[in-house]
Amino acid sequence: MQDAIIYIDPDKPVSLQNQIRQKLVDGIINGVFPPGMKLPSSRKLSGQLEVARNTVVAAYQLLIADGYLISRQRSGVFVNEKILESRVAASGRSHTAHEDRSALWMRGNESARRGLSDVQDLPNWSLYPYPFIDGQFDASLFPLTEWREANRLSMSVADVREWSAGSGDADDPMLLEEIRTKILTRRGIQAETDQILVTTGTQNSLYLISRLLTETQITVAMEEPGNSSVRELFRQSGSSVRPQSVDESGLVVDASLSATDVVYVTPSHQIPTAVAMSLQRRQALMSAAHDGDLTIIEDDYECETSYMDHPLPALRSMDSDGRVIYVASFSNVLGPGIRLGFIVADARFIRRARHLRSKILEHPPYNNQRTAAYFLSLGHYDALMLRLGRVLRERRMRLRSALTNVRGIPLEISPEVGGTTYWVRAPSDFDVGNLVLEAEREGLLIEPVSHYYAIQENAENCFRMGVTSLSVDKIRPGVERLMELVRKLVRGQVEHLSTSSGKWLTGDELVKTMAGATLLDREVYGWPCTIVYHPDGTMSGRRGFANEDIDAGRWRVEGDRFYRKWNRWVFGEEKGYFIVIDGDKIKFFNEEQQIVDSLLLRLADKSPEPESRNLDP
Amino acid sequence: MQDAIIYIDPDKPVSLQNQIRQKLVDGIINGVFPPGMKLPSSRKLSGQLEVARNTVVAAYQLLIADGYLISRQRSGVFVNEKILESRVAASGRSHTAHEDRSALWMRGNESARRGLSDVQDLPNWSLYPYPFIDGQFDASLFPLTEWREANRLSMSVADVREWSAGSGDADDPMLLEEIRTKILTRRGIQAETDQILVTTGTQNSLYLISRLLTETQITVAMEEPGNSSVRELFRQSGSSVRPQSVDESGLVVDASLSATDVVYVTPSHQIPTAVAMSLQRRQALMSAAHDGDLTIIEDDYECETSYMDHPLPALRSMDSDGRVIYVASFSNVLGPGIRLGFIVADARFIRRARHLRSKILEHPPYNNQRTAAYFLSLGHYDALMLRLGRVLRERRMRLRSALTNVRGIPLEISPEVGGTTYWVRAPSDFDVGNLVLEAEREGLLIEPVSHYYAIQENAENCFRMGVTSLSVDKIRPGVERLMELVRKLVRGQVEHLSTSSGKWLTGDELVKTMAGATLLDREVYGWPCTIVYHPDGTMSGRRGFANEDIDAGRWRVEGDRFYRKWNRWVFGEEKGYFIVIDGDKIKFFNEEQQIVDSLLLRLADKSPEPESRNLDP
Repeated sequence: MQDAIIYIDPDKPVSLQNQIRQKLVDGIINGVFPPGMKLPSSRKLSGQLEVARNTVVAAYQLLIADGYLISRQRSGVFVNEKILESRVAASGRSHTAHEDRSALWMRGNESARRGLSDVQDLPNWSLYPYPFIDGQFDASLFPLTEWREANRLSMSVADVREWSAGSGDADDPMLLEEIRTKILTRRGIQAETDQILVTTGTQNSLYLISRLLTETQITVAMEEPGNSSVRELFRQSGSSVRPQSVDESGLVVDASLSATDVVYVTPSHQIPTAVAMSLQRRQALMSAAHDGDLTIIEDDYECETSYMDHPLPALRSMDSDGRVIYVASFSNVLGPGIRLGFIVADARFIRRARHLRSKILEHPPYNNQRTAAYFLSLGHYDALMLRLGRVLRERRMRLRSALTNVRGIPLEISPEVGGTTYWVRAPSDFDVGNLVLEAEREGLLIEPVSHYYAIQENAENCFRMGVTSLSVDKIRPGVERLMELVRKLVRGQVEHLSTSSGKWLTGDELVKTMAGATLLDREVYGWPCTIVYHPDGTMSGRRGFANEDIDAGRWRVEGDRFYRKWNRWVFGEEKGYFIVIDGDKIKFFNEEQQIVDSLLLRLADKSPEPESRNLDP
Repeated sequence: MQDAIIYIDPDKPVSLQNQIRQKLVDGIINGVFPPGMKLPSSRKLSGQLEVARNTVVAAYQLLIADGYLISRQRSGVFVNEKILESRVAASGRSHTAHEDRSALWMRGNESARRGLSDVQDLPNWSLYPYPFIDGQFDASLFPLTEWREANRLSMSVADVREWSAGSGDADDPMLLEEIRTKILTRRGIQAETDQILVTTGTQNSLYLISRLLTETQITVAMEEPGNSSVRELFRQSGSSVRPQSVDESGLVVDASLSATDVVYVTPSHQIPTAVAMSLQRRQALMSAAHDGDLTIIEDDYECETSYMDHPLPALRSMDSDGRVIYVASFSNVLGPGIRLGFIVADARFIRRARHLRSKILEHPPYNNQRTAAYFLSLGHYDALMLRLGRVLRERRMRLRSALTNVRGIPLEISPEVGGTTYWVRAPSDFDVGNLVLEAEREGLLIEPVSHYYAIQENAENCFRMGVTSLSVDKIRPGVERLMELVRKLVRGQVEHLSTSSGKWLTGDELVKTMAGATLLDREVYGWPCTIVYHPDGTMSGRRGFANEDIDAGRWRVEGDRFYRKWNRWVFGEEKGYFIVIDGDKIKFFNEEQQIVDSLLLRLADKSPEPESRNLDP
């Protein structure tokens, strides 16, 4: 049988009919099927491609309607000789620039590298099995059904007429109204539609704001550590940027703010520490802004508020004299690909921002504005926030418990401060940058933090781990793989069984020592932890300052190993260790004979054991 | 019967079910339906709203799935008490800014008004019955079926996963490839995908280009008259702008170009004259650019090329050393609302533009990029260009013939130069600005041209009329209404029957004079025109230098009026006139006794009339 003129792939997500059309159009335009060429009959082509004949007939009919093909009665289907007439013939000349000559723009400097970290910028981060990076969008959370529904509504004849021809600098009034009533009210913000400008996302919002605020030379207070791309934006606009420290209540409000004109702040979920600014601090900032006549840029992360138990009101909602410029986006809900965000501010500022926006990009596409408006109007936003909250809460808990069980390596995990992010602190001689690179090779993405600091001496030797970008079942295996890597990297520095000080216990001696022993520890987050190994082979544990978390389990000795299995803790897994006693310390070594934990040991008073009896079930 | 809790409008394009959902969600969020409130049963509500019960049931079910409502077995449907918990209560404080205090951004200057004309900026232009403005999009031409099809493909699970999570500065590779093969080849341009950047339309493209080219102080040559918003863009970036005149072959290429760094040019359809740059002029410009090391910005109007018989190759296709930066958009095909355009240039320039774009707006929305890619891949673009070409050609012909029949008023219509635009020139004492305003009040939008000139002394006393924005059946009534308005405005200056010099003929005297008379004229476009009134009541006419256009008809006299009706000309309508003979001139006056035409008259040699016999059928 003769070869088919095209090939199709039945496994592609594109329908067979559309594949046939695409291939034929490509061939016609590329000249593979020249004008006037007779195509095989639908019967023949369907036989060659092994598709239903109707599929080929339908494809041919559409291409005839489009003018690519022409049907001549009783002689068949041909490539239309006219379809290419309005195309200019390719000149065949190459466009490779003369490397010797330089057009004007080649003489300009290559701009400085962006302030973002390489990891966060990775365009293909989603291909990595363990992307522990915060703020990237997990496409599996995209509200597909709801968006399709809104999209379908926005494609009605009446809607298309409205959004397709629209130009000028206005936004879709329907979207403005929906943002006003369905999103801003969630944040306690009352706004009129003339106080809202739709943008192509937060980057665009901040670009517009920075351009408008820096018409004169200004000083901007920025959180330290803080959002490096915003710092870069203000620096490049000629502003002077003043780092202002962040503590566990958020941006520090003190007298030095009065020396600034503008404060950029991320109160709901500080970038990068994830601290939520306390209500008192918010009030102090608003009052300092009022006294010093400061403008505040409030960069809000809608998504992050959704799983906090008590979301605090936005600064904009506390703003009685129109000095807060509020920035938010749909990226955490609809993904960054759709590029929709908005600014809420005084109507006069919005008017100026709208004018500037029209010079830069006219307006964010109206079809997306209308679709988002329908999405909101059908109530999907609230529902999605609830769902996202549930999902992210679960992931955060999973990361927390995975990190809780990391021991014996020189890393310190900061107590949680809210948000989906944890900071992991390494000793000063540990090369975090190297770990980030090595981890990437293992399929693990973690984020270094030094680029968040304006003053590099402030930078802590830390990396960040977030959970917005990977599913819950990836979290524990990812943490384990990362810790394995850390152990490998610090092998030289980690105590080894063969060279350990103290006494290595095995067999009966090990059983005797452990029976009735109490172990005291502070776990990674700083919680105290007490574990008792009862002589009957059971064990009990209490964590927290008020024993918030209790578990029980069993222990045993087999040969030279000590085994323990908790009911819930450490995922209920049995693990075996080599044990060394060194003064009042007990040291646990893993299969590779590396130390993985070291705790305070109180040996049992071997006679009565009343305490352990009481705790036993 | 008890009142329904909501009202719906069966005439709205939104389905009843969706209306019910929208209204209930609004009510829940606004507190009209407080948490815990019991809703009427589906039976009751459907009765109140007079909709099918299933409609209400479906709306309730979706709201239950979304978490807005809760169903309690055997007791009914209630507003979920939890749905509003994650929302911050409105603080109740007002955001009206203190007029007395001024935040930083209020101290800045209000930016200068944009250089565009008011008329072209009218956001509601499409509501006017006769929008004779060029370059606005006629939403009735939107390829609805084709776009819906492409849109549906872009909403597959696999596609949504790709475009929703995408960030960074890349473009959709599928769209780049489709632009390369389906659009650029039409213009004779060969490009690699790394030479293409997707933008949010031409304004965005030119903003990026102007920012990159003006890192140092440069001189830009701009067409005079030319695109005022681009001139403004370069002026505001600190460049010096040099007007360069335009003649009937496009931008004049002469020695003065060598004093510039950048040339901005619209060769395929000059803005605003609609002149297409000749091939020779294109070659001269490329050679001057090469010799002077100039960068050329080529702003191309794809749509306009589609109905020209022989589209000329783009400058970019003649560019052997990468000095042409080519700009085009989808606005003429898909409308400006979708905001998609692109730049084609040397790969190094594109890299820099991509970097700048990421700082300003990240990237044009990926969902629209993917949909446009499918749209192109299915071959719709070529088909649509053919269709658009047909439609616009028909409209242009209609405008031409409507304007051809404008006589007796002091307006001069410039001969056509291609494109969808005609220039109408008024005498220097005629206030075109006033006409534009008066016309707007009558529902007619025409565009003044003075803002296209960098040097106001160059500005001609003209207005522009285009046909991209109104349907073919609107053109003639619109032109007639406009000319009626012009006659009213120039009433004082127009010759009136009562005060006319010459002799007013009526009755038999009129018949005798007209029988066998020949009228000679140059019509508005400069074509010669000869009309003969034969004694038998027929008439014949020839237009053009080679009598390209011939028509016949009948004339008669009734009382004091002369009536004539052409078979085709003047749309085959019968019209009556008062006739005055003034030396060798014949003057036609309309019903309002205003002069509407004045032609050279050659009276018949009353004896043999051989000529007219010959012409008679």
